[in-house]
Amino acid sequence: MINVAILGYGTVGSGVYEVIKTNNAIINKKAGQEVNIKYVLDLRDFPGDPVEDVLVHDYDTILNDDEVEVIAEVMGGVEPAYTFVKSALMKGKSVCTSNKELVAKHGPELIEIAREHGRNFFFEASCGGGIPIIRPLIECITADDVQEIVGILNGTTNYILTKMSREGLAFDTVLKEAQDLGYAERNPAADIEGFDACRKIAILASVVYGKNVDFEDVYTEGITKITDVDFKYANKIGYSVKLFGKAMKTDGKIYAYVAPVMINQEHPLFAVNDVFNGIMVKGNVLGDVMFYGSGAGKLPTASAVVSDMVDAIKHLNDNVLIDWSSDKLELTDIKNSEKKFFVRMSGDADEQKAAVEKAFGSVEIIRLDDVSGEFAFITDSMTEGKYEEAAKAFENIITRIRIEM
Amino acid sequence: MINVAILGYGTVGSGVYEVIKTNNAIINKKAGQEVNIKYVLDLRDFPGDPVEDVLVHDYDTILNDDEVEVIAEVMGGVEPAYTFVKSALMKGKSVCTSNKELVAKHGPELIEIAREHGRNFFFEASCGGGIPIIRPLIECITADDVQEIVGILNGTTNYILTKMSREGLAFDTVLKEAQDLGYAERNPAADIEGFDACRKIAILASVVYGKNVDFEDVYTEGITKITDVDFKYANKIGYSVKLFGKAMKTDGKIYAYVAPVMINQEHPLFAVNDVFNGIMVKGNVLGDVMFYGSGAGKLPTASAVVSDMVDAIKHLNDNVLIDWSSDKLELTDIKNSEKKFFVRMSGDADEQKAAVEKAFGSVEIIRLDDVSGEFAFITDSMTEGKYEEAAKAFENIITRIRIEM
Repeated sequence: MINVAILGYGTVGSGVYEVIKTNNAIINKKAGQEVNIKYVLDLRDFPGDPVEDVLVHDYDTILNDDEVEVIAEVMGGVEPAYTFVKSALMKGKSVCTSNKELVAKHGPELIEIAREHGRNFFFEASCGGGIPIIRPLIECITADDVQEIVGILNGTTNYILTKMSREGLAFDTVLKEAQDLGYAERNPAADIEGFDACRKIAILASVVYGKNVDFEDVYTEGITKITDVDFKYANKIGYSVKLFGKAMKTDGKIYAYVAPVMINQEHPLFAVNDVFNGIMVKGNVLGDVMFYGSGAGKLPTASAVVSDMVDAIKHLNDNVLIDWSSDKLELTDIKNSEKKFFVRMSGDADEQKAAVEKAFGSVEIIRLDDVSGEFAFITDSMTEGKYEEAAKAFENIITRIRIEM
Repeated sequence: MINVAILGYGTVGSGVYEVIKTNNAIINKKAGQEVNIKYVLDLRDFPGDPVEDVLVHDYDTILNDDEVEVIAEVMGGVEPAYTFVKSALMKGKSVCTSNKELVAKHGPELIEIAREHGRNFFFEASCGGGIPIIRPLIECITADDVQEIVGILNGTTNYILTKMSREGLAFDTVLKEAQDLGYAERNPAADIEGFDACRKIAILASVVYGKNVDFEDVYTEGITKITDVDFKYANKIGYSVKLFGKAMKTDGKIYAYVAPVMINQEHPLFAVNDVFNGIMVKGNVLGDVMFYGSGAGKLPTASAVVSDMVDAIKHLNDNVLIDWSSDKLELTDIKNSEKKFFVRMSGDADEQKAAVEKAFGSVEIIRLDDVSGEFAFITDSMTEGKYEEAAKAFENIITRIRIEM
């Protein structure tokens, strides 16, 4: 029998408890021994909930109990999670977490402490919810020079964008609906401003490239400026708007960004809709592989945390090497990266076509039947820097959205 | 430095050689030491090819060289691969293989021999080419009661079906084209009769359920009877025809089959076209996750083999537990499994509708404008046994294709 503890009995924490209880026999078999939840830590009380039998309010009870060998940290936020996790690892306990803020901020340090103590710090659930992606990157895709990792990494924004696309609704309307349904937080900034996706792509890029990508270095643009009119154009030309988190390697340099992009149906992530997540990895010999599933939600995320716990139990005295050093990975300014842009401009297309083509290349004008006084076009492929330079001459640009192929 | 050997210098073997040479620096870093190809075994000579320096014709040279610690077996076929692999494992070498015939036939025995010797037998490349699927099943999806694993597991047949769907061509025409392009073998039976997919679903189901699925127990139907007219109906109602390998659990019983099925665009595998493979896993807490990529091809398959080699090097003296015992997994007859069927019938729909509805439930008749003398319908959900019983009364059934949701 092995004793484990769960830090936090919120959405994911209660999910972890439920998964271990529900799939008891399977989990014990895979772990090679009986998994016993000795403690659940939460500040609150849960009268009448079976968790009461193991509920504690003081973390020291768990920390100082040498019988506890594996801990699931599912509280979220940097503190007190960081202090708790660090002290657990230093006491020789393994820790599995779903906490992307913690992993993005302190990942390499916690990995190193775990290594020094011959234990493990696992974080499969920090990206893509239930989708296996961290472990496949660490243990499966090891023969490739990874050119690109790109994902739809945030379920809330993907739900909003999917609904805007299908129903022609405005951003604010859909956001309010999503909040009423519990799909979006009352304070939605972490999702809609791209901060959540930013931490996830920083984690993924760090694991892929073996050095630390500081999430604060990642160019991040949210979806708040995407409008129903953008979707009218997108639908007309067979495109979709998605929030991408992307890291890519070009000529040995690495770029990373989070931003809304337009993609067409040739893109493997085109069909990733609603709250689902999808992550594509492009290797120089492997080609494209894609991972798809529930990117959030109580049980899928809990499934990933418990799978990490099973792996931590299987490797109890054996550190699994995670190639993510604290050396900083220097990102190149995305101004140097090249792509096409979708641009909406006010005014008359015929009058402006010549100036537009001079600045942005041979474009095809896109008009909407039911929207007057503006038009749109797609530029030639150009660097972000050149686009910005060219765009300065046009005060009548309404919006621009990057195009990904 | 670690010495490795490659058995076979055919498509995959030369790919393994090329990947190790091309991505040398990355592979050495991930493996934690320099990977040196000491031998390549092939009966043939390759004058002028750099492989000449390490080419040997006698397997004993490799087997008896204690410096060789990891072997890639990429010859294909059961013999002599089985004899070679078994003797290597017994000598305390780890083996990584892409050989699905070998794994489907002798998997549990070779896993057991590797375990006894504290070494590893890995076979990521045996299913889904470059797509990470075996390791995610073993190491990531360990907290779930897996309800279903289903995949498009054969690139050749998926290429043929995709081309028939898009271009309205007959099976034989497309097969010949595929052969001319090198996408299909001159003797295409292994692919088009479903034998290849059958071995792969047997391997996947064994790894998921921990017991041995004998591939000879898996009901297997190929795609040779699928016609251009079937696709006309499918296209009309928004369906696609795919060759599925599927294992599923219902009421504690496990079914497995390989057969062409019709799916609509709600199915996660609908968009898996051309030579690509896709595999979906349904867990009781995880929900659906999907893995997608190049299911075959020299370099993607080689990438998976080399990734296995890296993992074997990282776990050189440490057996990674693979839960696939030699105990036989008893499959339930698929006659007991329930689904809808697409049925084509000759004759006049109006005349036969009453009899059809009495036998198959309330059906909607589907007619093609350019095909006369027949019609089609989709049955209610019923067991395969009940369908067969009901179908006996209709000598005018032209074909039936299972429908998957």
